[in-house]
Amino acid sequence: MPGSVVPGEFELIAEFFAPLAGGGAFGLEDDAASLAIPSGENLVITQDMLVEDVHFFGADAPGSIAKKALGVNLSDLAAKGARPLGFTLGFGRTSQQTRDWCRAFAEGLGAMAREAACPLLGGDTVNAPVLTLSITAFGAVPSGRMVPRQGGRPGDLVYVSGTIGDAALGLKMRLEPDAPWVQALDLGLRAHLADRYLHPRPRITLAPLLLAYASAAMDVSDGLVGDTDKLARKLGARFEIARVPLSEAARTAISTDAALLETALTGGDDYEILCSVPPDRACEFVAQASNVGVDVTKIGVLETASSPKIWKSAMGQEKRFTRRSYTHSL
Amino acid sequence: MPGSVVPGEFELIAEFFAPLAGGGAFGLEDDAASLAIPSGENLVITQDMLVEDVHFFGADAPGSIAKKALGVNLSDLAAKGARPLGFTLGFGRTSQQTRDWCRAFAEGLGAMAREAACPLLGGDTVNAPVLTLSITAFGAVPSGRMVPRQGGRPGDLVYVSGTIGDAALGLKMRLEPDAPWVQALDLGLRAHLADRYLHPRPRITLAPLLLAYASAAMDVSDGLVGDTDKLARKLGARFEIARVPLSEAARTAISTDAALLETALTGGDDYEILCSVPPDRACEFVAQASNVGVDVTKIGVLETASSPKIWKSAMGQEKRFTRRSYTHSL
Repeated sequence: MPGSVVPGEFELIAEFFAPLAGGGAFGLEDDAASLAIPSGENLVITQDMLVEDVHFFGADAPGSIAKKALGVNLSDLAAKGARPLGFTLGFGRTSQQTRDWCRAFAEGLGAMAREAACPLLGGDTVNAPVLTLSITAFGAVPSGRMVPRQGGRPGDLVYVSGTIGDAALGLKMRLEPDAPWVQALDLGLRAHLADRYLHPRPRITLAPLLLAYASAAMDVSDGLVGDTDKLARKLGARFEIARVPLSEAARTAISTDAALLETALTGGDDYEILCSVPPDRACEFVAQASNVGVDVTKIGVLETASSPKIWKSAMGQEKRFTRRSYTHSL
Repeated sequence: MPGSVVPGEFELIAEFFAPLAGGGAFGLEDDAASLAIPSGENLVITQDMLVEDVHFFGADAPGSIAKKALGVNLSDLAAKGARPLGFTLGFGRTSQQTRDWCRAFAEGLGAMAREAACPLLGGDTVNAPVLTLSITAFGAVPSGRMVPRQGGRPGDLVYVSGTIGDAALGLKMRLEPDAPWVQALDLGLRAHLADRYLHPRPRITLAPLLLAYASAAMDVSDGLVGDTDKLARKLGARFEIARVPLSEAARTAISTDAALLETALTGGDDYEILCSVPPDRACEFVAQASNVGVDVTKIGVLETASSPKIWKSAMGQEKRFTRRSYTHSL
């Protein structure tokens, strides 16, 4: 059958999705999956829904779209300290999802699923006006140990993994490719930003360290500043902008156009880990993270509830943001 | 704030969804839910996605849309013999989802969730071009005991719960309200068909009986005839059309327009249980189902793989169907 044809539901499942199915998925031939949760562990459940023209560009490579849809869910599992168990896929498709498209989508999805040891367990295929991907991902943590968003205490140090702002700048670059700041980046730096927007890197290897060291954790999806507000919702906090880890690409962009600093700090789609760690455990946490290949950087400290939430500039003044979070609408 | 305003994401969650949250959902304030699965039990996972103008009419009452979205998932859990544990909601909303709309939606969702003891555990709220509801539902069965779709053996009797075809006729009635067959129905019969299309009745009380008696089960969502093909995929089977349970409304409609028989048998959206039961357990199964208030009707028998799948008319001839299943696209 030619690759330009839109496959029927059963063909789609049998040919492209069934090869990704894990144990308990019954080859995607049943109406439900069945999963044994090891005794002494809790199930962790997270759901992220991605809509074409809202969360991604429909014209992007199908494999990239697949990796983003699964990656943002794996990022949530990692932030909770969970070991991936599997996922279900709600696949709302249009006439654009031809056989060739679906093959490439399944290849990308399978590559990330194998890398994360997180097989496909089931889902639903429906017709939709735009491509709509609704993934529910499952993980396991020792009973009662899911790393909470709001477990931080005054005095805990706040860390972030990797670098911040690359994805937001990558999106901005696509929306305004002729802007002077884009022209100031060489091709390698542009490719870095473009890649960070397209391909979240879920910090799966950090999960066991968050279980061991973090008092609270979440992933950075809606912008670092707004997400620190959420982590410290019932507390005060102090952050230093100069400490926020930036890539060479982000630093170059910001040095060309200082307003891009706010884009980086509030733009979202980072899928890095934001966490708080008691000060006496911090040194070991940083060393262990480095051992699994992830740089974590201290950006601030949690304070008592009577304190404000402050971001300080390099000059020591309080920085005010126009908006603290990003709301998705491409 | 006026009811005609579209609520912000955090307001929506705090005001309308958080009151439906169950234990382990952390008041919907975390990025994930945590669930303890009792030892000796397996988790059962099912996902159904409903899209406006494909699976439901956007102008329908928000509470009805909510009940349908959750109900079709509860129907899958029931068919697998699972006790509901909870669900997550992917809520793809448009500018039509005002505060008043969301309040009514949450009321309908909460009513069905409470009735099924199936609380909200989490989810995601996004912007979408049409209302898109992606529910993943969780249940529990004794370890290794999920009732499979393809566990039937030759000689097992095939049963269906309730009545078949009402929802498909209810949909057809809405699409062609002036048809002679609609005019032949009194208001009470019309209301019955309309209600069956709007409000699936998940057969939760049958779940423990399916565990105890059924060799295979699934819910009837894509039309009885096509779904019996799936139940008997690796087997032969013989069914008698005259045995298929029909409501008074469906019988009246079909007596006016004989072509509606095929609509009833292949139209979908029934959300009744289709199952196979070994003949020596059948009598007890029927009696126990009646005890929990559900009529189940024998419609046929599974045969060896070398036999065909045949539907016989009341006159004893083989009935051929134009199409055996329904594909959703309103």
